[in-house]
Amino acid sequence: MAKFYGIGIGPGDSELVTVKASRLLSELDILYTPEAKMGGKSLALKIADPYIKEDLEIKQRHFPMVRDRSLKEGQWKEIADEIVQDVKSGKNVGFITLGDPMVYSTYSYLLEIIGDSIETQTIPGITSFNSIASQVNIPLVMDEESFAIVPATSGAEKLEEALKLHETVVIMKVANHLAMVLPLLEKYNLLHSTVLVSHASMDKQTIRRDISDLSVDEKLTYFTTMIVKKG
Amino acid sequence: MAKFYGIGIGPGDSELVTVKASRLLSELDILYTPEAKMGGKSLALKIADPYIKEDLEIKQRHFPMVRDRSLKEGQWKEIADEIVQDVKSGKNVGFITLGDPMVYSTYSYLLEIIGDSIETQTIPGITSFNSIASQVNIPLVMDEESFAIVPATSGAEKLEEALKLHETVVIMKVANHLAMVLPLLEKYNLLHSTVLVSHASMDKQTIRRDISDLSVDEKLTYFTTMIVKKG
Repeated sequence: MAKFYGIGIGPGDSELVTVKASRLLSELDILYTPEAKMGGKSLALKIADPYIKEDLEIKQRHFPMVRDRSLKEGQWKEIADEIVQDVKSGKNVGFITLGDPMVYSTYSYLLEIIGDSIETQTIPGITSFNSIASQVNIPLVMDEESFAIVPATSGAEKLEEALKLHETVVIMKVANHLAMVLPLLEKYNLLHSTVLVSHASMDKQTIRRDISDLSVDEKLTYFTTMIVKKG
Repeated sequence: MAKFYGIGIGPGDSELVTVKASRLLSELDILYTPEAKMGGKSLALKIADPYIKEDLEIKQRHFPMVRDRSLKEGQWKEIADEIVQDVKSGKNVGFITLGDPMVYSTYSYLLEIIGDSIETQTIPGITSFNSIASQVNIPLVMDEESFAIVPATSGAEKLEEALKLHETVVIMKVANHLAMVLPLLEKYNLLHSTVLVSHASMDKQTIRRDISDLSVDEKLTYFTTMIVKKG
């Protein structure tokens, strides 16, 4: 029976796609993918490229990244409807997302709209933070420790509580929030034990293992993550 | 040059191994793997099995799972020394871990002992909680939400703080801690929105999507995880 597959393709390196995702990608009839901002191939599509067959039908669709939910929802509804129609016509349809489909992904919204109108299956992917931890050889947690994933956009209060509570905190989306994040890390004397990674697992990846000298004015790319480790 | 590879092989399904891990497994000269408790093949080895070559040298070693660190450390030191010797003699050596090597894995300790005496590379794997979220089609986080991974062994106080702070909390190692965990979930009216999964992504997997009727006396296996979602 035809299905809709939400496929996590990992952080950037095509080899960090799972065997299952690579097989499903090669079996799809139609692949939906987020439209690249500047035209050209989307990053997700580049990662999946080694696994897809030549005659795969690719539907690049625009997913607006705005704060206004109602603006976004109209667009998502349209794409979800198209996916449902494709599956009902007997096609195996895929949607690829960077990292894992259940961690900060547009796929969640599609899933919510689609509900159980068609059969869906989600394939997990390597998250950016798991990939980063492996690259810098820093364990996220051991034994009885805990860790949290906190986007800088969730605000100073929440981030501070998380820094107090957990042995390790991964801060996502730090790019435009250094003025908030850096003083907090300084307050708890954590600048030395913070690793900052931009473009994890991609060609232009950069890693800093101590951010004591990072300026709040530094321009960082959207794909920048910090791993803060206490003790 | 010969290397030591720490390889995450994911939660249980051999297809959830990454393409990179599957390639490296097929190229290794020696594979270290935790010894199965009851003799026979270890779980990790079963997952990796489709990818390893017939003449691969497999070294099953005993990693004691006791609380006393000094007891464990002697054993780890011995295994680490053996690995270093193997790599220095020109062999490509692997060590496989369930899930991700940087999330609650013995590999962290090996890495600490080995340091930079030989070249090491860590390959991330799909964690049990990412796999579970995909299987039950429940997003871990969206937009500005945060989530935490907390082992039940870290105690009631920490778990309560985490439940107050984050939109989603993954509770690991709940098996023998229901008497502590369940009253807390009840206090915050979260029993209905908790998913409990045993043996994620394995044949004998069980999933419960509402644990209001779960008894504190229930016997659960070690591989049991809860995903608690607020709101």
